[in-house]
Amino acid sequence: MNLAMICYILSWAVCLIGLFLLPSCVAALFYQETAGLVYLAVAAVYIAAGLLLTRKKPASSRFYAKDGYVTVALTWMLASILGAVPFTLAGDIPNFLDAVFETASGFTTTGSTILTDIEAVSHASLFWRAFTQWLGGMGILVFLMAILPLSSGRNIHLMRAESTGASVEKMVPKIRESATLLYKIYGVLTLSEMVLLLFGGMSFFEAITTSFTSGGTGGFGVLNTSMSAYSPYVQYVVTVFQLLFGVNFGVYFLLLARKFKAGLLYEELRWYLLVIAVATALVMWDIRSLFPTLEEVFRHSFFQVVTIMTTTGYMSTDFSLWPSLSQSVLVLLMFIGACAGSTGGGMKISRWLLMGKYVRCEAKRLRHPRVVYKIRLNGSAVSDDILRQVLFYLVAYVLIFVVSLMLISLEGYDLVTSFTSVATTYNNVGPGLSLVGPTSNFAFYSPLSKLVLIFDMLAGRLEVLPLVVLLSAMGEKCGSVLKRTKKSAA
Amino acid sequence: MNLAMICYILSWAVCLIGLFLLPSCVAALFYQETAGLVYLAVAAVYIAAGLLLTRKKPASSRFYAKDGYVTVALTWMLASILGAVPFTLAGDIPNFLDAVFETASGFTTTGSTILTDIEAVSHASLFWRAFTQWLGGMGILVFLMAILPLSSGRNIHLMRAESTGASVEKMVPKIRESATLLYKIYGVLTLSEMVLLLFGGMSFFEAITTSFTSGGTGGFGVLNTSMSAYSPYVQYVVTVFQLLFGVNFGVYFLLLARKFKAGLLYEELRWYLLVIAVATALVMWDIRSLFPTLEEVFRHSFFQVVTIMTTTGYMSTDFSLWPSLSQSVLVLLMFIGACAGSTGGGMKISRWLLMGKYVRCEAKRLRHPRVVYKIRLNGSAVSDDILRQVLFYLVAYVLIFVVSLMLISLEGYDLVTSFTSVATTYNNVGPGLSLVGPTSNFAFYSPLSKLVLIFDMLAGRLEVLPLVVLLSAMGEKCGSVLKRTKKSAA
Repeated sequence: MNLAMICYILSWAVCLIGLFLLPSCVAALFYQETAGLVYLAVAAVYIAAGLLLTRKKPASSRFYAKDGYVTVALTWMLASILGAVPFTLAGDIPNFLDAVFETASGFTTTGSTILTDIEAVSHASLFWRAFTQWLGGMGILVFLMAILPLSSGRNIHLMRAESTGASVEKMVPKIRESATLLYKIYGVLTLSEMVLLLFGGMSFFEAITTSFTSGGTGGFGVLNTSMSAYSPYVQYVVTVFQLLFGVNFGVYFLLLARKFKAGLLYEELRWYLLVIAVATALVMWDIRSLFPTLEEVFRHSFFQVVTIMTTTGYMSTDFSLWPSLSQSVLVLLMFIGACAGSTGGGMKISRWLLMGKYVRCEAKRLRHPRVVYKIRLNGSAVSDDILRQVLFYLVAYVLIFVVSLMLISLEGYDLVTSFTSVATTYNNVGPGLSLVGPTSNFAFYSPLSKLVLIFDMLAGRLEVLPLVVLLSAMGEKCGSVLKRTKKSAA
Repeated sequence: MNLAMICYILSWAVCLIGLFLLPSCVAALFYQETAGLVYLAVAAVYIAAGLLLTRKKPASSRFYAKDGYVTVALTWMLASILGAVPFTLAGDIPNFLDAVFETASGFTTTGSTILTDIEAVSHASLFWRAFTQWLGGMGILVFLMAILPLSSGRNIHLMRAESTGASVEKMVPKIRESATLLYKIYGVLTLSEMVLLLFGGMSFFEAITTSFTSGGTGGFGVLNTSMSAYSPYVQYVVTVFQLLFGVNFGVYFLLLARKFKAGLLYEELRWYLLVIAVATALVMWDIRSLFPTLEEVFRHSFFQVVTIMTTTGYMSTDFSLWPSLSQSVLVLLMFIGACAGSTGGGMKISRWLLMGKYVRCEAKRLRHPRVVYKIRLNGSAVSDDILRQVLFYLVAYVLIFVVSLMLISLEGYDLVTSFTSVATTYNNVGPGLSLVGPTSNFAFYSPLSKLVLIFDMLAGRLEVLPLVVLLSAMGEKCGSVLKRTKKSAA
């Protein structure tokens, strides 16, 4: 492994996190909060330290796929720790582990919180919380690539490790241009939402944080009531934009390239819309008697289905009080997730499609062993390599899920709490049911459980592989150190 | 597909089911029940019809793997339907769908029941219920192979499709001898349990039915209180035998061949015992204050852990009243399941081991792409084919689980009920939690949900593949018929 190169990229990431803290200082200035000074000081330290460390250039520029995975895993862990420092120093989240939980929940666009009173937090910290979700949605290193001239061999491995979904399709030949283009589409969508929210009478601060947290499909709110106190207009705007951010960004690229037919006929998009329509209809039928008008029934059903399916996780009304069918539908949606290549989490529609097609194909192969069957997705043939990755992802997903559930169960809370805690953090949704319902939070968990849930959030956002490669490398290192110690002792 | 050959084997299966009904007539004679006449009449019809149908010998003896899968799937569906007829005709289960549910639950060794009062049922039917579980544990077609001289090419495909676990290891070169040997080991173990239970003061009827239902790891009781009214001695005997029936029968073969070391060092066996030990310790700690003596705490913890892990599903005490940690442990055990090649269900220890090794291996491969890593289980290398089957199994398992959960959720019962209903039937355990807890039953479900759960029981026992191949074949048939109709219409 090229450790020097990994350290070099990590140093740039430290510098970048410092830069990312600066907008919070502006927010603090606006609201005349002393927390701004903390953010400024921490930002200065990070930028200085990062720049200092980047002066040591790596000797070799060899950079393999494994280096990409390890870099991404370490960057995200580092971001969760460094990003937590101002929360604690500003006094908004005194317990540092809680602050790390909150930051990991931000960057991974999960949106689970340990805050019991969100409105008591300084505007600087609220802004930072929202901004982490916007950055995490598209990716920290993707941002780095968009602004730094790294060699393209490195870029593709970083991009692959950080992006969501089974495959990374290059939109344009150069990875760096792809990264810039992605952030451009992302920025325009976010800005449009912000303008529409301002029209709805939201304050500038609320409009910008809401468009950040819905943009990253994160779901952190700035009010204790999440989205439930806002007007129907605002709720509709937020719903539609969540839906848009859950779409594969490749579709927008096709539309920009005027390939309208190809974009709208995109297989994953059609299934995504179908699942949303069916789930909304089911929930509407189930909660039909809870609200006085059909409009309200539709609005809350549509809002909650979209917010859970895109793994954003706001609340327009307390859905933990809804009947069982709706709750079951919402929990199932957590696992389905959004489209690949979007800012959303979960297992992704395309993986489910591939799994279904794989089973059909294998069954046919068993009956006609000599015929070669090809799996196609979104109109093109799926390579064996991608299929392998999907299968590996599923095995690792199930194993991590089961082990996490075992560890969380040791706390002795009820089954629904334990199960939805893991489901909501692992799929980067936010709220669960029972004790971790939408009006509740994760503060009551023990430090061990919080660490498990932080791991789950990172594993979910990075789609398992980077963390598995990192753990495997660490395991081998430990093994060889142990062997050496044994040898020298003998 | 060789339909004539499939029909030929199915005809023998019909005949066999008729024969299997005869012991119930003896039970009825002993208790002077008129139900015995029903069983005798039905048996006579099946045997006559079966023998008549077997007179038409198939022209070709070609028999591929796909034929094996389809034959096994159809045999088990047929057995569930034909086996249900005497229940309804004898008046013990008036609703025929309920009778099919009960029979499928029997043959698949699930043990979920729709009976609200077990003790009101005739002894003939209670005996039949227990006997289906004993037969289903080892396999209906494995029994057929042990007694019928079919060609060995056919046998291996049937054996593969009906046995549990990722691979079928031939114990002796000839499949037929393997089948006979399996049933011999099975018979001796069952008989030993029966004798020990008789020593414990059980009646002959209770001893024989209990050893049948624990032998098949089924879990149907003949009392409404399941195992909770019996003496500690009986509970210990049943626990130990459940544990023994959950062991890979290959281990017993090794012991019989005096390969003691290989048998006891069997990797899957060690993990099986480890999981049981850890789970028992956790549950003991969790329920320590519920019982007056340590012996009782140990007995109930050990009993419930073993009965759920081996997917038998008796109850020694109402564990749905235990604290959350114990409930979570028991639900997790349902998914882990027993050893491959045992009469137990669930995903099987060996599949979990293979999945864990696969993830470790792939992570290493990513870091060192040029090194070839081999996965080993129970001391021998695992072929790519077996690994493929494990991956396929997992994908199909997850898809069927999610679709079943969606369909069951439509009933609108609470999450725990819906989830554990699918988990307990799909893993062939028996009881769930909440509304389907150990003192409860499945009678309240709608016909559609019962059909879904019957499918899950069959899919669980046959480990997915036979049903998937059958569905795929039916799908293709329907497709081609539709095409032909369209063509002739045009």
